[in-house]
Amino acid sequence: MHWHEHDVSSKGVRERRFDIVRSGRTVPSLLWTPAGAGGPRPLVLVGHGAAQTKSEAYVVALARTLVRHHAMAAVAIDGPVHGDRRPGGHIDGSLVMLEFGQRWADDPGLTDDMIRDWQAVLHAVQGLDEVGAGPVGYWGLSMGTILGVPLVVAEPAISVAVLGLWGLTGPTSARLAGDAAAVACPVLFLVQWDDALCPRQRSFELFDALGTGDKRLHANPGAHSAVPPQEFLATAQFLADHLVPAEHPTTAEAASA
Amino acid sequence: MHWHEHDVSSKGVRERRFDIVRSGRTVPSLLWTPAGAGGPRPLVLVGHGAAQTKSEAYVVALARTLVRHHAMAAVAIDGPVHGDRRPGGHIDGSLVMLEFGQRWADDPGLTDDMIRDWQAVLHAVQGLDEVGAGPVGYWGLSMGTILGVPLVVAEPAISVAVLGLWGLTGPTSARLAGDAAAVACPVLFLVQWDDALCPRQRSFELFDALGTGDKRLHANPGAHSAVPPQEFLATAQFLADHLVPAEHPTTAEAASA
Repeated sequence: MHWHEHDVSSKGVRERRFDIVRSGRTVPSLLWTPAGAGGPRPLVLVGHGAAQTKSEAYVVALARTLVRHHAMAAVAIDGPVHGDRRPGGHIDGSLVMLEFGQRWADDPGLTDDMIRDWQAVLHAVQGLDEVGAGPVGYWGLSMGTILGVPLVVAEPAISVAVLGLWGLTGPTSARLAGDAAAVACPVLFLVQWDDALCPRQRSFELFDALGTGDKRLHANPGAHSAVPPQEFLATAQFLADHLVPAEHPTTAEAASA
Repeated sequence: MHWHEHDVSSKGVRERRFDIVRSGRTVPSLLWTPAGAGGPRPLVLVGHGAAQTKSEAYVVALARTLVRHHAMAAVAIDGPVHGDRRPGGHIDGSLVMLEFGQRWADDPGLTDDMIRDWQAVLHAVQGLDEVGAGPVGYWGLSMGTILGVPLVVAEPAISVAVLGLWGLTGPTSARLAGDAAAVACPVLFLVQWDDALCPRQRSFELFDALGTGDKRLHANPGAHSAVPPQEFLATAQFLADHLVPAEHPTTAEAASA
């Protein structure tokens, strides 16, 4: 891990910037942990959407919620051709979207490279005393689902996932369908009802294809990017329910009424 | 209100049986309130599904959750041709289902009579010191949605609703579509992914038709009747978030991360 100078703490959350270098690839990463606390603790891998970066406002807000309210750790990395993977750093999102589309169509290694990037980052972060080898969750919408479904299947440490805002469409849809069938962990799947980038019917097909019986779908009105704040909080609570022992809900709560 | 002898308290929840008589109709009702506590407090009207009754296990469990965990009151009434509306009381569900189907097809007053029944019960219950004129929510799935959507539109006191497990189908689908468009309050809408009684596409159409912008859809795998216990708890929390002042969530929680 090559640590950058960026190391800031606010309201009990420490945010650090590091790189992992593997096979000549540099994987730019951001880590959030409780300030001044040791491990082990649950860890959530956060995959951002296309044309965005690891330091997108909603990524940071989600990571801080996971740390502050649920005492977990969180790590985000830049996607392919995104953010600090670019020689000059993050640029205009429309151009990144265009380049990602080209890479996605042309390069069959795109998904597998991202899986190996994530696994290298996971290994490194769990080697830190303040994280350790706790349970692991994955959170990724849109491009974070395109690249995340294969990751969830490939990485056995991942035991719960938040996915959505994408469906069985695009250059990798056949792989996505196959990997979806192999997903065996609990999943919360988000759909935006009026999504023009990925029509809801395509997303329903991906939800349908998920092999796990422990899945649920939450849909909200609005466009692709209009996931409401309450739904973000619900995803954090869902991950905590599965990763933090003290927050495990039981059906006994219902039965005890 | 004609009170029956049935008046039992358990774990802080008092359950009482009463009838309302209006225009020659008797409306059999069950009321749940916190034992020994005064009002006013929020009230939830609970509409059961076809072939069931006001004392169905899940209705009682939900009502008790609303009272015990959220300090609300709850009231349920038997649906048309259901439960204690029958001269001999509740009988085999299949026969009730058949009779309800006939009445639903034949009698245009079925829905309006139920609206007036609910309004009479609401008025009576809010006249009790231990309930009072607090905010009101509606909870009803399947037949509870068929009859509930028109009620939510007709009764201005209702400010939040849990609906679902039905769609734009059946003898009253045209009215349902029209009333859905007039729903203006927050709605949580449930869908069972493998629902054979009401295929999910029909339910999606009803969700789509809801006029309120403040709506969300939760879908779970399984058959019509297989709503998971956690989802029942989520519906209770949703109602509490909107009806109990102390439980109002704020987007500031997310922003404060």
